[in-house]
Amino acid sequence: MASGKNHPTFSRGEHTHQVPMELFQENRKRLCERLKATGQVPNGAFVVLQGGVSETRNDTDHEPIFRQESFFHWAFGVEEPDFFGAIEVDTGRAILFPVRLGEAYAVWMGRLLTEDDFKHLYSVDEVHFSDQISEVLKSKNASLLLTLHGLNTDSGKYSKEAVFEGIAEFEVNNEILHPEITECRVFKTDLELQAIRYANKISSESHIEVMKHVRPGMYEYQAESIFRHYCHYTGGLRMLAYTCICGSGHNGSILHYGHSGAPNSKRLEDGDICLLDMGAEYYCYGSDITCSYPANGKFTQDQKAIYEAVLAANRAVLAAVRPGVSWVDMHKLAERVLLEHLVQLGLLKGNVEDMMRVRLGAVFMPHGLGHFLGIDTHDCGGYPQGTQRIDEPGLRSLRTVRTLEPRMVITIEPGCYFIDTLLDRALQDERQRQFIDEIVIRRFRHFGGVRIEDDIAVTETGCELLSVVPRTVEEIERVMAEGRGSHQPLPQEKK
Amino acid sequence: MASGKNHPTFSRGEHTHQVPMELFQENRKRLCERLKATGQVPNGAFVVLQGGVSETRNDTDHEPIFRQESFFHWAFGVEEPDFFGAIEVDTGRAILFPVRLGEAYAVWMGRLLTEDDFKHLYSVDEVHFSDQISEVLKSKNASLLLTLHGLNTDSGKYSKEAVFEGIAEFEVNNEILHPEITECRVFKTDLELQAIRYANKISSESHIEVMKHVRPGMYEYQAESIFRHYCHYTGGLRMLAYTCICGSGHNGSILHYGHSGAPNSKRLEDGDICLLDMGAEYYCYGSDITCSYPANGKFTQDQKAIYEAVLAANRAVLAAVRPGVSWVDMHKLAERVLLEHLVQLGLLKGNVEDMMRVRLGAVFMPHGLGHFLGIDTHDCGGYPQGTQRIDEPGLRSLRTVRTLEPRMVITIEPGCYFIDTLLDRALQDERQRQFIDEIVIRRFRHFGGVRIEDDIAVTETGCELLSVVPRTVEEIERVMAEGRGSHQPLPQEKK
Repeated sequence: MASGKNHPTFSRGEHTHQVPMELFQENRKRLCERLKATGQVPNGAFVVLQGGVSETRNDTDHEPIFRQESFFHWAFGVEEPDFFGAIEVDTGRAILFPVRLGEAYAVWMGRLLTEDDFKHLYSVDEVHFSDQISEVLKSKNASLLLTLHGLNTDSGKYSKEAVFEGIAEFEVNNEILHPEITECRVFKTDLELQAIRYANKISSESHIEVMKHVRPGMYEYQAESIFRHYCHYTGGLRMLAYTCICGSGHNGSILHYGHSGAPNSKRLEDGDICLLDMGAEYYCYGSDITCSYPANGKFTQDQKAIYEAVLAANRAVLAAVRPGVSWVDMHKLAERVLLEHLVQLGLLKGNVEDMMRVRLGAVFMPHGLGHFLGIDTHDCGGYPQGTQRIDEPGLRSLRTVRTLEPRMVITIEPGCYFIDTLLDRALQDERQRQFIDEIVIRRFRHFGGVRIEDDIAVTETGCELLSVVPRTVEEIERVMAEGRGSHQPLPQEKK
Repeated sequence: MASGKNHPTFSRGEHTHQVPMELFQENRKRLCERLKATGQVPNGAFVVLQGGVSETRNDTDHEPIFRQESFFHWAFGVEEPDFFGAIEVDTGRAILFPVRLGEAYAVWMGRLLTEDDFKHLYSVDEVHFSDQISEVLKSKNASLLLTLHGLNTDSGKYSKEAVFEGIAEFEVNNEILHPEITECRVFKTDLELQAIRYANKISSESHIEVMKHVRPGMYEYQAESIFRHYCHYTGGLRMLAYTCICGSGHNGSILHYGHSGAPNSKRLEDGDICLLDMGAEYYCYGSDITCSYPANGKFTQDQKAIYEAVLAANRAVLAAVRPGVSWVDMHKLAERVLLEHLVQLGLLKGNVEDMMRVRLGAVFMPHGLGHFLGIDTHDCGGYPQGTQRIDEPGLRSLRTVRTLEPRMVITIEPGCYFIDTLLDRALQDERQRQFIDEIVIRRFRHFGGVRIEDDIAVTETGCELLSVVPRTVEEIERVMAEGRGSHQPLPQEKK
């Protein structure tokens, strides 16, 4: 709930980050300017967005906690379901349309908020209930309604276009809005960066908290639980940005581990390396961080070698990132550094440029180097019109092929995994198997994986690192040793 | 993930409750027996259920953690989405149909499970991929498919009937199954009771953990976070059974507090009474517990008075519950005890039976006394054919009007709330206002509310109390005082 009488802000208490409603005013202003610049929008046009809809599970009355649809959040910051919103393009004036609740709701929901309450809460110009949308837009002589229709290039799904009773009486265009609002979302304002920075600060601290607790005998889900608790209890981050991936040992090579069929339920064993990919969101602005380290707090020689190979890739990209740099080149840079290290370690043999030509990097890192981050963990805008996926192993998994520009927020997450399916396939591939030392690779078959994922904001001259967690082997071992000093018994060790 | 090589069970580690797959075998057996007893099912019939479907949020690729559809869970205990399942009514033989995943999935999901893996994992008789349902059922000469179609009386929504390619070639009946499987779910087996008992044990302990931490200056959501963490970390309960309601002060009177628009975000103030309604689920079997106590650990005289009135109602019902008792009578018993106490306290004046006739109890307790509990928090079966809602204040909110029978699991949750809307309405109601002392009531306008919610299983002779938390004023004050001894500073108090 937004609070603060005269200057409405969102927060979860004075100790948490304060988000002024100006964030959304600025976003709407930016959108109107872009729309006008297209030259396709006549005077008197309105953007009309439909917010997320309240849902229940299957046939029951179980209501999952509502989380706002991302475009609607970007434009209005509304926390409740079942809203509509409109923006007058000429003036930037914003109108919210909450659903009209009957008197009976007051018994269950407390005092019902009035139009004025909502107007103040979300700092908009007007509020009417949603059964009046048509009437209100007519009274304002809306010449054209701009609705949202477009492809999400990560999911392959289309956005939900606003529909309300009476819309048939208006001129509607559903093509202009989507590319423009998507492009606005790609570039983060200072106020948006502050929110993302806070989500990253708390999520980073939370990773450190987990790092101090991890040890053999713990279950993977206990790491998830510590992470989630720290984020919520300490920072007011109620929602995770995505399902925690807490893979130990071989599970570290399962890229989508952690889902309902593999719910982080393995015991951490002495000798396991753990891959913990966890991030929380604050007022829908997210973070996405991966730490990898040994369950017992002490890297083996092989673990250190693979870890430092991935860290070198991560650091090479961090050092190279700046405006004008191609993300595809960054992906290849990470691959090249990784392959060079794997040659040094004796897993691979031969010329790295030859390996690059046969896409050998994708055997060890089948996913893309990173993705935009914002209100969605895989934030929109990776493939604007005119760009195309590169249909080659590894590169086809890239969530963007864009050239970096200031105010983009993106993850840098090189990894090295020993995935049986991919190793078997490579060993059967004439062009790839010549580079692989089968004997040495065999030693790593049960290794699992390492990923080192940071979040950065591109600046004018380079980048700002948003995630701050221990990264070198020495730092990690020190933090884990510190933690061991204050270990309480695990629940499973009691009595 | 179920585990255990020779005797498949579900657990979250050796220290957590072990659920043998016999639980679902027994459920299927019970269902087949009931179906046969209807006399409406010919030889060769098959029950066909469709499991829950995997989902992503709006147009994005964000996947909320999947939770199985409740009827499907009851029949098969499957943790993954997108399954179908069939049961041969004559023999009870069970067939599961997982979705066939392409080879590419192995890169992201790890080794793909085979038919044999699933057969063992869930202890069923056969497994085929779901593109073969039609073929398999034909090969078995299925004479009739029984699909699920029926009303959930809490949500007003209908269950999702199984649909698959080729179903048009079968005889289908969607009327027989729903009432029978619903009735099966009402009566819990020993194995089901064990799971519910475990969910209650961990949730009870977790409530005590919260009770020890609560104090002025804490935020409501910090109580939610402690609860959730304890359940997951200590007991392996990843999912809550419903959204935590953590209302302090006036928020305690908002029955549906805690949702996205009111996300437990208030600071607990000295003098507030807190109403904490929180429960977690284990392998989809839930618990639902409410504790009410003062933020500062010491009841005021008014708080003690209202609390003990509600406790007396709770205890009166607990003592009266046994097979043959009408739930409507239990609701009225709770109301009567509550009204008697409010008279003693001077809030009300006059004859309690007269108050009952004008439904005065519903002013202070507008919800029903309790509901069935199981795989759903509001479990199904409250209004079987032939029963009807009673259209009177309070009583119309009852989720069941049934006569209690052994193996029903139900919540007992009397409450007393000071809800402005309802008090104002009562004071304008000729028949009700004569009983209300307006001066005394005014003192309670900002009181909030008290609810005392326990979960019980009806036994042959009475009931088993499943939730075990401190209940008397003395016990609560003692536990809270104990907690104070080991308080760490709150995050908001640091530096």
